[in-house]
Amino acid sequence: MNYTIAVIPGDGIGPDIVEQAKLVLDKIGEKYGHTFDYTEVLAGGAAIDAVGEPLPEATIKVCKESDSVLLGAVGGPKWDHLGGDQRPEKALLGLRSALGLFANIRPATMFKQLRDACPLKEEIIGDDGLDLVVVRELTGGIYFGKRGRDHGPNGEEAYDTMMYSVDEVKRIAKVAFDIAMKRNKKVTSIDKANVLENSRLWRAVVEEVAKDYKEVTVEHLYVDNGAMQLVINPKQFDVILTGNMFGDILSDEASMITGSIGMLPSASLGESKLGMYEPIHGSAPDIAGMDKANPIATITSLAMMLRYSFDLEEEALAIEKAVEEVLEDGYRTGDIMSKGMTLVGTKEMGRLIVGKL
Amino acid sequence: MNYTIAVIPGDGIGPDIVEQAKLVLDKIGEKYGHTFDYTEVLAGGAAIDAVGEPLPEATIKVCKESDSVLLGAVGGPKWDHLGGDQRPEKALLGLRSALGLFANIRPATMFKQLRDACPLKEEIIGDDGLDLVVVRELTGGIYFGKRGRDHGPNGEEAYDTMMYSVDEVKRIAKVAFDIAMKRNKKVTSIDKANVLENSRLWRAVVEEVAKDYKEVTVEHLYVDNGAMQLVINPKQFDVILTGNMFGDILSDEASMITGSIGMLPSASLGESKLGMYEPIHGSAPDIAGMDKANPIATITSLAMMLRYSFDLEEEALAIEKAVEEVLEDGYRTGDIMSKGMTLVGTKEMGRLIVGKL
Ligand SMILES: CC(C)[C@H](C(=O)O)[C@@H](O)C(=O)O
Ligand SMILES: CC(C)[C@H](C(=O)O)[C@@H](O)C(=O)O
Repeated sequence: MNYTIAVIPGDGIGPDIVEQAKLVLDKIGEKYGHTFDYTEVLAGGAAIDAVGEPLPEATIKVCKESDSVLLGAVGGPKWDHLGGDQRPEKALLGLRSALGLFANIRPATMFKQLRDACPLKEEIIGDDGLDLVVVRELTGGIYFGKRGRDHGPNGEEAYDTMMYSVDEVKRIAKVAFDIAMKRNKKVTSIDKANVLENSRLWRAVVEEVAKDYKEVTVEHLYVDNGAMQLVINPKQFDVILTGNMFGDILSDEASMITGSIGMLPSASLGESKLGMYEPIHGSAPDIAGMDKANPIATITSLAMMLRYSFDLEEEALAIEKAVEEVLEDGYRTGDIMSKGMTLVGTKEMGRLIVGKL
Repeated sequence: MNYTIAVIPGDGIGPDIVEQAKLVLDKIGEKYGHTFDYTEVLAGGAAIDAVGEPLPEATIKVCKESDSVLLGAVGGPKWDHLGGDQRPEKALLGLRSALGLFANIRPATMFKQLRDACPLKEEIIGDDGLDLVVVRELTGGIYFGKRGRDHGPNGEEAYDTMMYSVDEVKRIAKVAFDIAMKRNKKVTSIDKANVLENSRLWRAVVEEVAKDYKEVTVEHLYVDNGAMQLVINPKQFDVILTGNMFGDILSDEASMITGSIGMLPSASLGESKLGMYEPIHGSAPDIAGMDKANPIATITSLAMMLRYSFDLEEEALAIEKAVEEVLEDGYRTGDIMSKGMTLVGTKEMGRLIVGKL
C-alpha cells in the first residue's frame, strides 16, 4: 500500500527526531512492502520565522489531504513574547481543531529497562511496572470556549469559558470505553462535578455511555483526587477519561510518574482514519541540532500511526519490539542515560532501531 | 486575651477531630493565659440533615462575628446525589465567599518521622525532606464565575467561566510574595498562559507585583509542567502561587507527595484577621465516630490560627513542637501507622499532645 504523510518537523529538536523516525518508517516500508510519501510542512515557530504565522493555510491543506500527520515538536522561548494567536502553540491547537482531532490518546507506560528512572518508590510500582492510558478530549472545553477581556469593577478582567455539550462528551467517552474493552475493562472518568456545571453534564453523559459497555467498570474521581491517586496508587488506573484541561495536567503527571517520558508517544484522532502523531515531550531548544535528542518517543508515535490510522498492527509491533531490543542491549541517549549503559546520539539511536527491523 | 471561635465539626470524622483540637486549644489557653470561647455551628451534610440546607444564614452570621473559624470536614457519599447548590461542598464555597477568604495557604511539609510514607524515591526527597507552601486564590476563578446550561447545536451544553480581574490577582500575588519574604524568597506562579486569556492577565499582574519584591526570585510554569515538576523535582519550589482551580489540583498533589497528608493544615484568609482553619484531608465517613481518625492536621490547623489570626507565634510553635514530640515518641494513629510504632486512637492522640504542652 501507498501512504501519504504530512511531516511537521517543527522547532527545537523536532527536525532531529523526525529525521530518524522517517528512516525507521522507510525501513518498515521496505520490509513489509509499503510506500510512505512524505510532504514536509511548516508549523509553529519555524512557520512564524518563515512566513510570519504559526499555522499557514497551506499546512492545514496538506495535512487534510494526507493519510496521516507526524509532528516533532513546536514552541520555544524564542517565541514566548508573542500574543495568543501568534504563538507556536496556536499551530497545535489550530491543527487539532481544523482536522477534528477530538481524541487524544496518551499511553503512560513504563519501559522496564528504565525502571530506575521512575520517581516513585518500588512498592508503589510493583513488579509489573505501570501501564495506563489517558484519553483526553482535545477540541472542546476551556481550550476552545469563548474568551476575552472586559472592564469590571475590579479593574481589567479576562475570562475563558469551559463548555461541553452532550455530543462532545459522548464521542470521547465512547473512545475511552472502546479502548478499555481491549485492555483491562476499567474506565476512570475525572472531572470536578462538585463544583463545575460542565463536569456534572460530563459525569451524567459518561454514565449513559457506560450502559452500553456492561463489562467495563466505571469510576468517577474529582480532579484533585485524581492528581493524588496518580502519585499514591497509579496501578488502580487502566483508562483515564477526562476533558481537555484536566487531561493536559493529568496526562503529563501520568507520563512523568512512569519515568519514561522521553519514550512516550501520543495520537490525536478524529472521526476518520486521519490522525496526528507526536511525542509528548517538548522541543528542548537547548539541545537542538546537537545530535543529542532522544528520537524514541517519535518512533513509538509512528507505531501508534501504523496501528490507529493504517491498521498495520504487525508493523506497529515490529517497531515497538525493535525499540525494546535496543534498550535491552543497553543503548541510551543522554536523557535516559544511567550507569553501565552505552551513550549514543540521536542518529545512532535511529540507526540501531532500524538495524533491529 | 479572650478569643471567640466559631467551630464547625461538620461531617464524618469532623466531630472526632475537632473535639481533640478544642482540648489542645484549652490547654494552650490555660498555659498562656488566654480564653477561647467556642460557638458550635452547623454546615455541610450535618446542616442538610438538621435544617435542610448546607450553609444556614445563622452559621454565616456566627462566623462573621467570631475572631476565627475552625472547621473539621464536610461532605460524604450520603449527600452525593444532591444537586449543585444543595451539596455539602456548598458550605465551604459559601463560607469562603461570604467571609471574603481569598487566600488559601497550604503548607506541604514532610514530617521527618513519616519519611517512609513519602511515595517519592529517597534521591528526590534528599536529606532535608520537603517544605513548600501553596498559595491558592480562593474566591475567584472558575469556582465563582458564571455557569449554566444552554441548548446548542450538539445537544445540551453546560459551561463555567474562569475569570480573573487585575485586583484579584494583585491581592493574592502580594500574599504569596509576603510569605516568600519570610521563607526562601522564591515564588513560582503557575498558570496556562499559552492557552488561557485569564492566565495571560494573571502572569502580567504577577510580573507587576514582583517589581515591589526585588529580593524574590519569580518563575512562571504552565500547569501541566507544574504537575510534572512536583513529582520529579519538588525541591525547586518554595512558594507556589496559583489560581483557584489549578490550586485545588496542585495543592492536593503537593500534599500527597509529602506522604504526610494526614498531618497537613490549611488557612483561608481575607483582608481582616478572621480566618478559617481546617485540615486538608477529607471527612472519611467510613471511620467516623470510631476513635480512629487522626486529629493532628486539625491540631496543626490551630497552630496556623494562632499564628495568622491571633499573632500568637509562641503558642503556635508550642503546638507544633508538641506534635513533633508525640511522633518522636512513636505514637501513631492508624492512617500513619508503621512497624515498631505504637497505635493509638483519636482521643489518646489528643491526650498525648495535650500532655506535651
Ligand atoms: C502546547 C500546549 C498548547 C499543549 C496543550 O496544552 O494542549 C501541550 O501542553 C499539550 O499537552 O499538547
Ligand atoms: C470540596 C471542594 C469544593 C473543595 C475545593 O475544590 O475547593 C476541596 O477540594 C478543597 O480543596 O478544599
